[in-house]
Amino acid sequence: MGKARLEAFSDGVIAVIITIMVLELKVPHGSSPADLAGLGPVFFSYVLSFVFVAIYWNNHHHMLHTVQHVTGGILWANLHLLFWLSLVPFTTGWMSENRFATWPTFAYGLVLLLAAIAYYLLQTCVIHNHGADSLLAKAVGADVKGKISPVLYLVALGMTFFETWIALAIYVVVALIWLVPDRRIEKVITSGAGAGGTAE
Amino acid sequence: MGKARLEAFSDGVIAVIITIMVLELKVPHGSSPADLAGLGPVFFSYVLSFVFVAIYWNNHHHMLHTVQHVTGGILWANLHLLFWLSLVPFTTGWMSENRFATWPTFAYGLVLLLAAIAYYLLQTCVIHNHGADSLLAKAVGADVKGKISPVLYLVALGMTFFETWIALAIYVVVALIWLVPDRRIEKVITSGAGAGGTAE
Amino acid sequence: MGKARLEAFSDGVIAVIITIMVLELKVPHGSSPADLAGLGPVFFSYVLSFVFVAIYWNNHHHMLHTVQHVTGGILWANLHLLFWLSLVPFTTGWMSENRFATWPTFAYGLVLLLAAIAYYLLQTCVIHNHGADSLLAKAVGADVKGKISPVLYLVALGMTFFETWIALAIYVVVALIWLVPDRRIEKVITSGAGAGGTAE
Amino acid sequence: MGKARLEAFSDGVIAVIITIMVLELKVPHGSSPADLAGLGPVFFSYVLSFVFVAIYWNNHHHMLHTVQHVTGGILWANLHLLFWLSLVPFTTGWMSENRFATWPTFAYGLVLLLAAIAYYLLQTCVIHNHGADSLLAKAVGADVKGKISPVLYLVALGMTFFETWIALAIYVVVALIWLVPDRRIEKVITSGAGAGGTAE
Repeated sequence: MGKARLEAFSDGVIAVIITIMVLELKVPHGSSPADLAGLGPVFFSYVLSFVFVAIYWNNHHHMLHTVQHVTGGILWANLHLLFWLSLVPFTTGWMSENRFATWPTFAYGLVLLLAAIAYYLLQTCVIHNHGADSLLAKAVGADVKGKISPVLYLVALGMTFFETWIALAIYVVVALIWLVPDRRIEKVITSGAGAGGTAE
Repeated sequence: MGKARLEAFSDGVIAVIITIMVLELKVPHGSSPADLAGLGPVFFSYVLSFVFVAIYWNNHHHMLHTVQHVTGGILWANLHLLFWLSLVPFTTGWMSENRFATWPTFAYGLVLLLAAIAYYLLQTCVIHNHGADSLLAKAVGADVKGKISPVLYLVALGMTFFETWIALAIYVVVALIWLVPDRRIEKVITSGAGAGGTAE
Repeated sequence: MGKARLEAFSDGVIAVIITIMVLELKVPHGSSPADLAGLGPVFFSYVLSFVFVAIYWNNHHHMLHTVQHVTGGILWANLHLLFWLSLVPFTTGWMSENRFATWPTFAYGLVLLLAAIAYYLLQTCVIHNHGADSLLAKAVGADVKGKISPVLYLVALGMTFFETWIALAIYVVVALIWLVPDRRIEKVITSGAGAGGTAE
Repeated sequence: MGKARLEAFSDGVIAVIITIMVLELKVPHGSSPADLAGLGPVFFSYVLSFVFVAIYWNNHHHMLHTVQHVTGGILWANLHLLFWLSLVPFTTGWMSENRFATWPTFAYGLVLLLAAIAYYLLQTCVIHNHGADSLLAKAVGADVKGKISPVLYLVALGMTFFETWIALAIYVVVALIWLVPDRRIEKVITSGAGAGGTAE
């Protein structure tokens, strides 16, 4: 089973998700900077969600790179991840239209948490199919980022009931943690290719 | 005739279909959980349609895997399938906005039935072009799922005039039947590759 | 210069065009068959446009199959074709919302005519770059379909000022002419591959 | 690290961007030519933006052609470019709905300027990773177009406060500068392939 179509379909879905979010940036009726300024919360939310979806695409790109055979389980784990990502435009719109009210901000974080769990399940599924000695297993290693993110999301979800801006700040922190380039897989692939040459 | 573009185009269309359905999940004006709860039927319909389209993509992925040469007939049979799938966002929206009223629920099932028939035609077209001994012919075999689904859809279509929730339950059952991973093609490919090695 | 990305980008644009047309099928507010029947003209227009865009994708698929090197001219001729195709959802919507009034039906045909001309320019550009002995040049041959279509469009454009349903009938006829599988390129490729083996 | 998915994802995003812009061409309620004429500014803006996004795709296609290994830096520089391009449908809509008022025309040019800078950063990133003797470095050369465009954008941004039509004329000039086929990379690839044969 080749992975080309799994990648192509995921790329297609993620490309549409990241692009239709911009439809939420509704053209203001006036033409002054003040009219644009009213879109501030929507624009901030768009940037945040763009970065999150971009991070998922980026990590997905790296993870799939290590996959050598695609199983039915991997296909469905991948579709499960795409499902939660497909809800990001909705929660982004709800949160920004309500100016970061409690429940919309909660829902935004909840979908991010569920996407993170879906990503973890996909990763586990891939490692299960490729063995504990596989490239991905080595690359993920202790997976500090993967473990700390859900904890941060949970803290943020709790904070939405006290101060939503703290929850938002935590979402930004999670994004920044992942924005730092993740060289683990690149490194393992390079060293693996040097040692064995069969990685590609 | 290569199959790369047939796959790429189908992936593109299915990716857009599965993603624009989320546009039907219109952002509620209020910010309370009650406002979100009002979206319950829309959300249920979105999940159901997401799963159906995902199943089609999944089976399409497996079917195309066995295709070795693409003919004009296969191209058009494929476009015919994509046409009915492209109506899923519309019937999903009509059904959920009318809270599962009789005719919208009927239309939803009808489009699913027509997509199932289109899939069957595509499958028949591929088998016709590749021979009764081809991978796909062996993999499909008695094709119990493919034969039972239209029957279930017909029963559901009839039930919409009595109890729409029974029709909906049948739609869910059909989805669950297909969600069980279909290992037929995977198995035949694996054994075929073992025996002859020419499958890929 | 590879043609993979030219194909991938064209597939992406055409996939989005063919799918966003369904957004024009706006969910009716009522739930009766009469509410759906009101969508009749919109549905007819959607089917017609789906078939036209599908024909373009199909022919584009065959044409690109014969391309061996992509030049800047081919890239821009292709973008020019995609531009006119991108207007199809707009003219489809205008025509169907106005129930086939004169000018919208004229505009619909005009965009089809301009797309046909753009396709002809792309074809000419490819043949110019690959030589009069190339696969495409042989496959196109006298190009009866390619020459009769613009004439039919022009007749239809004129008819919109007398009887728009005649113009619509001519659009349907053009679609049917092209729906008949075009085996020219397939044939030439097959015979070319048999004779020289260098076609692929 | 392969570049196939980077290309596929970029193609997907750009294909969606270029196509959803047509959604801004809202179907007019009347059916007379006058109703269509009212869309003049929207249509002009659509054509201009279509050409700009097409130019970016075209140049992106050529640039990526020279890339041999993709790094995390290139991935993010590419996503940064896609971010600014994703805002083009929004600024196009704001500018055309306000009939080229000062601030919307300013915002339109600003996003073009930021996209140009993002493209420059991506190009610099690729050259940095492939060496000053790389194909792209040679192809870009003095990069007159790349250097003159930001200057022209800045002049246009200033002009929006005096005469917006001059700013628009400058945008058109920039588009025309780039529409002239850029044969630099094609030439260098051809000569490089002739000399060393390792370019592909």
